[in-house]
Amino acid sequence: MPSKTAKRTYSGQEYCPVARTLDIVGDRWTILIIRNIFDRQRRFSQLLESLPGISSNLLADRLKRLEEAGILTRRFYTSHPPRAEYWFTDKGKAFGKVLSAMRDWGEEWEPEDKPARS
Amino acid sequence: MPSKTAKRTYSGQEYCPVARTLDIVGDRWTILIIRNIFDRQRRFSQLLESLPGISSNLLADRLKRLEEAGILTRRFYTSHPPRAEYWFTDKGKAFGKVLSAMRDWGEEWEPEDKPARS
Repeated sequence: MPSKTAKRTYSGQEYCPVARTLDIVGDRWTILIIRNIFDRQRRFSQLLESLPGISSNLLADRLKRLEEAGILTRRFYTSHPPRAEYWFTDKGKAFGKVLSAMRDWGEEWEPEDKPARS
Repeated sequence: MPSKTAKRTYSGQEYCPVARTLDIVGDRWTILIIRNIFDRQRRFSQLLESLPGISSNLLADRLKRLEEAGILTRRFYTSHPPRAEYWFTDKGKAFGKVLSAMRDWGEEWEPEDKPARS
């Protein structure tokens, strides 16, 4: 498993900022976790409940990576036992523009009532 | 393997437009393929060469999905043997905004010369 600082090589355009963004958030669950924290589901239990199909281990791993990437920060709301909420850093807040662009595109081009293609 | 029309259930927010967008393009290679076609690498051989690590089968599969999703269209530039270039539909062109948002975020928050975190 690559470390969080290992560079994946997409090459040709290895250092392209799109590829660098994908290094951080190029994972379906990661985007959905970010979406849900933007929707103020800040606690582990809330995220687990609101993302059916995600395992507890996977959620913990993705939250850890997002914290290590400087996108999320934890704030403890109780100390006994220690329980944290996840909040966005400025870097995380800035990712809202990517999420908005995805939402806009989905609303326009993949509308909810669109008939399934054969 | 889910068919292209199968709905994945993220639920709670199953029909969220972000999830619908991820259903179409929520794959690292897919985004990189789109990026490269925006960079005018329109031919299969060009894409294969510019995406080291991608297999011929995977590239063919992702291009087929993008065509089925109405994002790409093929135009034949020779008929013997048949060889196609991939061009964006309006739906595909509109995805440029998502790509731009990812590029902007990467440029600002994951600069190329950023020291690796310890």
